[in-house]
Amino acid sequence: MKTMGLRHLYLINPRYFPDAQATAMAAGADDILENAVVCNSIDEALQGVVFTVAMTARLRDISIEVKTPREAMPQVLQEAQAGPVALLFGTEMSGLTNEEMGKAQLGVNIPTNPEFSSLNVAAAVQVMAYETSVAAQSFVPSVPQIEPATHERVEGLYEHLQRTLFEIGFFTTQNPARLMQRLRRLYSRTRLEDEEINILRGILTVTTEYNGRLKARYQQEHKDV
Amino acid sequence: MKTMGLRHLYLINPRYFPDAQATAMAAGADDILENAVVCNSIDEALQGVVFTVAMTARLRDISIEVKTPREAMPQVLQEAQAGPVALLFGTEMSGLTNEEMGKAQLGVNIPTNPEFSSLNVAAAVQVMAYETSVAAQSFVPSVPQIEPATHERVEGLYEHLQRTLFEIGFFTTQNPARLMQRLRRLYSRTRLEDEEINILRGILTVTTEYNGRLKARYQQEHKDV
Repeated sequence: MKTMGLRHLYLINPRYFPDAQATAMAAGADDILENAVVCNSIDEALQGVVFTVAMTARLRDISIEVKTPREAMPQVLQEAQAGPVALLFGTEMSGLTNEEMGKAQLGVNIPTNPEFSSLNVAAAVQVMAYETSVAAQSFVPSVPQIEPATHERVEGLYEHLQRTLFEIGFFTTQNPARLMQRLRRLYSRTRLEDEEINILRGILTVTTEYNGRLKARYQQEHKDV
Repeated sequence: MKTMGLRHLYLINPRYFPDAQATAMAAGADDILENAVVCNSIDEALQGVVFTVAMTARLRDISIEVKTPREAMPQVLQEAQAGPVALLFGTEMSGLTNEEMGKAQLGVNIPTNPEFSSLNVAAAVQVMAYETSVAAQSFVPSVPQIEPATHERVEGLYEHLQRTLFEIGFFTTQNPARLMQRLRRLYSRTRLEDEEINILRGILTVTTEYNGRLKARYQQEHKDV
């Protein structure tokens, strides 16, 4: 990370931290480890982030768009004009779950030998740090077209949406996890601005209120019967 | 290496090999280690190679042309049309010496953070393997313009040249190491074909013979005096 000019490391539920072996191996870059922020969840790590790239070894069964590192970089750097962007790496053993990938706006797959594709996390981080550094050196920013909302604002919308879809009875027979993935996909493709989130949440609030009034009237009518 | 589709590993005077820790870390790619060729010298490792890239952390005081990995790749892949090409990495502690770099036709420097540029060997190998793999996927070969001689043929010429320059007295007051570096630079830029090496060595042989005759006559004349 440090050789490629990256500084901000967030560790989500690390098994050991600080770790003597990691500190020893970081020789000269131990400031990166010292300043690492330890988080309890992906959401906590992504507070304030406006664009998240999730690394994936899989190409199928992914709910978000997937690019190669080189294809992704212009977009990543462009998004970084609006606020912090994050590269999200999964665990050494199993990578990111589908649910975790849903937190991101873009998936990135490092093309590997089909006969041996298990790139370890350190190698994947090296490739992405290198690509970021090379791309940054020749990047010419264009004027941002939207002002994307932060991760926590977007997650707040998804929570509100899911709660509402349960309340109005849309999520009874359906599989909510799968449908929420589809809805996340739609909105992550669009990129939401703060004002748009306000509008959507306003609609959700009114939806529930309307539903609440219907319920109340139904109960009233049945009481009358 | 294996994740990026590379297979041929040559180790020059490894401190430990085979090594239990290395084998354990290679999980799934242990065939690369098993098939690794252990050599006693760079020349031995480069037998049959037609183009060698030397990795360098330095940009100054280098006797050969230096490119970035991305700039170098089209040329590396093009040279690979004619025969094996090699990526030559130095030791973890000190990299390659100037003399070792002189064995290569091209230097490659991975751009790093000026404030922290010490990329370790594993990271450098990962970057180069990745760049090779990405470049190979979109590479369109052009017709080779020359048929480059192998490493050992070129080294044979340099030995012959150095011996001759000593014999004819060119290397008495001069610093031969530095001048040989300059001559290597000249010929590595040109890329020599087999036939050209034959011609140059022919000239060297005649030069020595001519010089031998001169010497003999000089000694004869002095005897006469």
